[in-house]
Amino acid sequence: MKERRLAELLKTYKPGHALPRQFYRDEELYEVEIDQIWRHGWLFAGFTSQIPKPGDYFVYDVDTDSIIIVRREDGSLAALHNVCRHRGSLVAIDPIGHAQRFICPYHQWTYDLSGKLATSRGMPADLDRAELCLKPVQLREMAGLIYISLAAEPIGFEAANACMAPLARPQGFDRARVAHLVDYEVHANWKIVWENNRECYHCDVNHPQYVKANFDRYDAGQVNAQIAQQIEAATERSRLRWEAQGLMVTHREVGLAIFPDADRNIWYSAHRTALVDGYVTESIDGWQVAPLMGDYNDPDVGTLRLRTLPNFWNHSSCDHAVATRLTPAGPRLTKIRVMWLVHQDAVEGQDYHLSELLSFWQLTAEQDWVICERVQRGVDSRAYIAGPLSTTKEYNVDHFIRWYLRQLSEVPSSFTQASDSWATADTHLIVL
Amino acid sequence: MKERRLAELLKTYKPGHALPRQFYRDEELYEVEIDQIWRHGWLFAGFTSQIPKPGDYFVYDVDTDSIIIVRREDGSLAALHNVCRHRGSLVAIDPIGHAQRFICPYHQWTYDLSGKLATSRGMPADLDRAELCLKPVQLREMAGLIYISLAAEPIGFEAANACMAPLARPQGFDRARVAHLVDYEVHANWKIVWENNRECYHCDVNHPQYVKANFDRYDAGQVNAQIAQQIEAATERSRLRWEAQGLMVTHREVGLAIFPDADRNIWYSAHRTALVDGYVTESIDGWQVAPLMGDYNDPDVGTLRLRTLPNFWNHSSCDHAVATRLTPAGPRLTKIRVMWLVHQDAVEGQDYHLSELLSFWQLTAEQDWVICERVQRGVDSRAYIAGPLSTTKEYNVDHFIRWYLRQLSEVPSSFTQASDSWATADTHLIVL
Amino acid sequence: MKERRLAELLKTYKPGHALPRQFYRDEELYEVEIDQIWRHGWLFAGFTSQIPKPGDYFVYDVDTDSIIIVRREDGSLAALHNVCRHRGSLVAIDPIGHAQRFICPYHQWTYDLSGKLATSRGMPADLDRAELCLKPVQLREMAGLIYISLAAEPIGFEAANACMAPLARPQGFDRARVAHLVDYEVHANWKIVWENNRECYHCDVNHPQYVKANFDRYDAGQVNAQIAQQIEAATERSRLRWEAQGLMVTHREVGLAIFPDADRNIWYSAHRTALVDGYVTESIDGWQVAPLMGDYNDPDVGTLRLRTLPNFWNHSSCDHAVATRLTPAGPRLTKIRVMWLVHQDAVEGQDYHLSELLSFWQLTAEQDWVICERVQRGVDSRAYIAGPLSTTKEYNVDHFIRWYLRQLSEVPSSFTQASDSWATADTHLIVL
Repeated sequence: MKERRLAELLKTYKPGHALPRQFYRDEELYEVEIDQIWRHGWLFAGFTSQIPKPGDYFVYDVDTDSIIIVRREDGSLAALHNVCRHRGSLVAIDPIGHAQRFICPYHQWTYDLSGKLATSRGMPADLDRAELCLKPVQLREMAGLIYISLAAEPIGFEAANACMAPLARPQGFDRARVAHLVDYEVHANWKIVWENNRECYHCDVNHPQYVKANFDRYDAGQVNAQIAQQIEAATERSRLRWEAQGLMVTHREVGLAIFPDADRNIWYSAHRTALVDGYVTESIDGWQVAPLMGDYNDPDVGTLRLRTLPNFWNHSSCDHAVATRLTPAGPRLTKIRVMWLVHQDAVEGQDYHLSELLSFWQLTAEQDWVICERVQRGVDSRAYIAGPLSTTKEYNVDHFIRWYLRQLSEVPSSFTQASDSWATADTHLIVL
Repeated sequence: MKERRLAELLKTYKPGHALPRQFYRDEELYEVEIDQIWRHGWLFAGFTSQIPKPGDYFVYDVDTDSIIIVRREDGSLAALHNVCRHRGSLVAIDPIGHAQRFICPYHQWTYDLSGKLATSRGMPADLDRAELCLKPVQLREMAGLIYISLAAEPIGFEAANACMAPLARPQGFDRARVAHLVDYEVHANWKIVWENNRECYHCDVNHPQYVKANFDRYDAGQVNAQIAQQIEAATERSRLRWEAQGLMVTHREVGLAIFPDADRNIWYSAHRTALVDGYVTESIDGWQVAPLMGDYNDPDVGTLRLRTLPNFWNHSSCDHAVATRLTPAGPRLTKIRVMWLVHQDAVEGQDYHLSELLSFWQLTAEQDWVICERVQRGVDSRAYIAGPLSTTKEYNVDHFIRWYLRQLSEVPSSFTQASDSWATADTHLIVL
Repeated sequence: MKERRLAELLKTYKPGHALPRQFYRDEELYEVEIDQIWRHGWLFAGFTSQIPKPGDYFVYDVDTDSIIIVRREDGSLAALHNVCRHRGSLVAIDPIGHAQRFICPYHQWTYDLSGKLATSRGMPADLDRAELCLKPVQLREMAGLIYISLAAEPIGFEAANACMAPLARPQGFDRARVAHLVDYEVHANWKIVWENNRECYHCDVNHPQYVKANFDRYDAGQVNAQIAQQIEAATERSRLRWEAQGLMVTHREVGLAIFPDADRNIWYSAHRTALVDGYVTESIDGWQVAPLMGDYNDPDVGTLRLRTLPNFWNHSSCDHAVATRLTPAGPRLTKIRVMWLVHQDAVEGQDYHLSELLSFWQLTAEQDWVICERVQRGVDSRAYIAGPLSTTKEYNVDHFIRWYLRQLSEVPSSFTQASDSWATADTHLIVL
């Protein structure tokens, strides 16, 4: 995309409003987003508990790339480009598997679990094997969550880790098991999916089951003293018990916590907050649907929310966690994986039933996908005009939009080539 | 599309011949057509009888846009862009429905049936609601037919109305019922579909059922005196009875009536003409297949043909009407809806049977779609050379092509921006 | 494609390596390939035995074009563009059929089997019919194989004929019958399909059934004297009997015969070579699966390999032949037809069983298509780096790549317009 065209497009944005039409449709802008956001930041890939033993791996496909995430012999994790250094075949074919070495199915070049080329039969003895490893991908582990970055020198991860790990750790993601996952193809731009996630203005009518369990439905600055009192009561009731478990209450205000923070350029967040009285978990009736997870010894732990841009959010209760991973597949298509986690020892049909475990979030997610596809269909229209955002209900949509525009403006377009400029780029990006 | 490229393309056309290859394939030209023809002229949307009661609506999707056509409390009709002024969601989800108000399913902004924003809960009290109505679309009603225009200041409709309404009125489209409709996706450029419609040169072999009922198969200027005599006899036989019913005979010549009229830039036509002896309707055996429609009190009314460019034709007999609506969906795809109308009180299975009602035109339509897809496949070839048109059998194809080229040449490319220039454009376009 | 862009792309190639990423993905480069390779050279279309009687025809679709290959009254063959000279409809609708004349289904313009316009009812008597023939396509017949070229003045065919015909003739392709064919859509660039075909480095693991029958698995220059000895023994054992049958042994070295020959710009090859002891044909168990074909009177005839770029290879044994025809359908899609031929008098279920006839090559082909799709998926990745080729196992991949690059570089981009420059272009292209 010519810089001039991007600059003109950015000028069409009107503060306090939704994004103009082309932001949800333009092919060239989509490529800019891939470069400056999706190949620049940190992407949630999956959970360490999905690959517990050395040699366990799974594959995550992002844009044109395919990435292997594998546990090595020493127990550490690595991310490797799933592309043979000979003629380019995929090396790992199964989406999840186990390997002692990665053997390319084409000509059997063999790589160890760190990607080092071990054997290449038929090639000259003096082949420079050290040069021909599976290309590495940056990886970070955070309390059982695996992040990768396709950037050569990615932005800093430390602040995200410091913010999220203490809250995430008690949930025991690293000692969990994926009980179920569903892959969706949602015909909507990835930003529409996020904008929908960043407000609960739509919840009352669209998510009747959700609003019974959560306080999100209420505005920030809600002038109803009764609501504020209910939240305060629910929080205070649990505070001492939570503290006894070493759990922090981090959000006790009416309205959604600020995320992302466009002003401070913050792309991660973690919050523990109270559920509505009568709900110990996000299930249809509020009752526990699986054994307690992680460090919890009391079902009253409220709900834990973790989020990282551009592709992850998570709602966790005492007994299960639900993770959502977004992957764009064009300006009008987003692939979405929703994963349900339970305690690693929980046995299906005995300790939990999928029907009870899934229904709350499967319903909520699918309600959202329908909404997002209607929005895409509407913003496709030449008649679409970006409307005003509610300052009390959609302040996080506004933050998301401004965070997004900041990524487009501040990251040098040349970052993929000029790795020298990266350090500088980072100081612009992360203001903590 | 650069003007220079368009100009070069236009130069490849050879008078008296079919259009050159790129006219049926070029993506950029297609966008010019969308702008200068489809978003400029009047599009048939549907029938007033589809939405008899206040609050009844249906949706018509054209290019990227979605349009609601609704009957208001006062009985008048309105067309509205189906895009919420807040974050752009589709407002009406069902393709046909009933609403007292349009409530956006996303955040429940509520619009009255004229598109005025009535409520927007959660937004500040000082929100300028007057500014935030569903954007209006131009609409005209003509003897039960509904036309819309996506242009801000569309071309004149009056002459079309004056020409068509008197002939259309007795058919009683406004007191009819859609007995059946079929939606097709035809893999052919919309102009191929029209060119096929504009000649009966292909009828003998491709439409054996059609040529039994109609005189269309014969050339203009047919030198066979017997044919002319048959038509004259059929017309004269009915003329007095038709006149007694207030029906005009408007076409009694051999050959198809001129349409469109490229020289006079006329995009509409209406004709009543005789059927072959033994046929009182366009059914397989010529026998009546449903109760008389509209004002008719005698089955002998011949056949009524209504046509408007770029997207509508209709064949009506004493007992039923068949409407065809085209909507382009890319240079090589046309969505086509065929609708069968009967008297509003006719009861299926009692007054008519779908098998008898549909077969004549379902057969004819589907024979045409097969033809059109073969033509697209052939003009796709680099070996295709636009051939000569028959002056006695394909003069309307020639008129269509010249009408089409005139729209590309005469309409200022800038009309969507510069509404001031519209009046001028109109005087160019409509020469009556 | 701008010449400058092509030149830059060509510069990214590193001798001795696979092709860089954009060669397998770029839309504009694909169009250049269509022009400079696919519309320039000779394409295998099918077999003369598919159309034994005058009026028999089949259709081959290449890029946007559709070509009829027909046997004329005098027994000779013709290739004609399947596009009516009137309004461009396809003339022959069935993929294979019989016609006394080609009658366009649209308006019944009628062409004789040489493409001459015979009748065009409804057109003026003075229509210049001589000008309106179905456009001819260049055709060559070679020992029962039919080649076409979409070029106005194609490259020379004589050298190919001289090389291939003597070896092909005894197989009796002209007296054969297509017992079965399968059409595949393989999601891989056509060059990936060829590169895979041009080495047997991948055979051991991927084609266990194939390597039992063939010596291809061994390297050129294999330092194992035992292998060379086995091939020599197998060849010598048969040599005298083959010579008695008039069959030439043309490849008795270890490793694949050189093809294509990039240095000499040779796009065709024919070889007869020995099969492994115990195999008289390429069947799962090596036993004969159909009656002897062509001139053969002894099952011991080894295996005959015919290949022509850009779209054909063939493996023939004593009792059946298997032909593979490639047709590109975009940078990431190749349509592939595999055809099994047997003696014309062989009766299915009696003389041969499809299960026995097909399994060897259906298995081999489908194993290859899976490989090719994995390679496409891998080279799609931005992480793909073209790796080094084995000089002993992949020398033919290297020849193919260099042959391919030579076609891009040497053919003048302007050849479709400037037919004058063709003779010159030919002298560049064919250095025999």
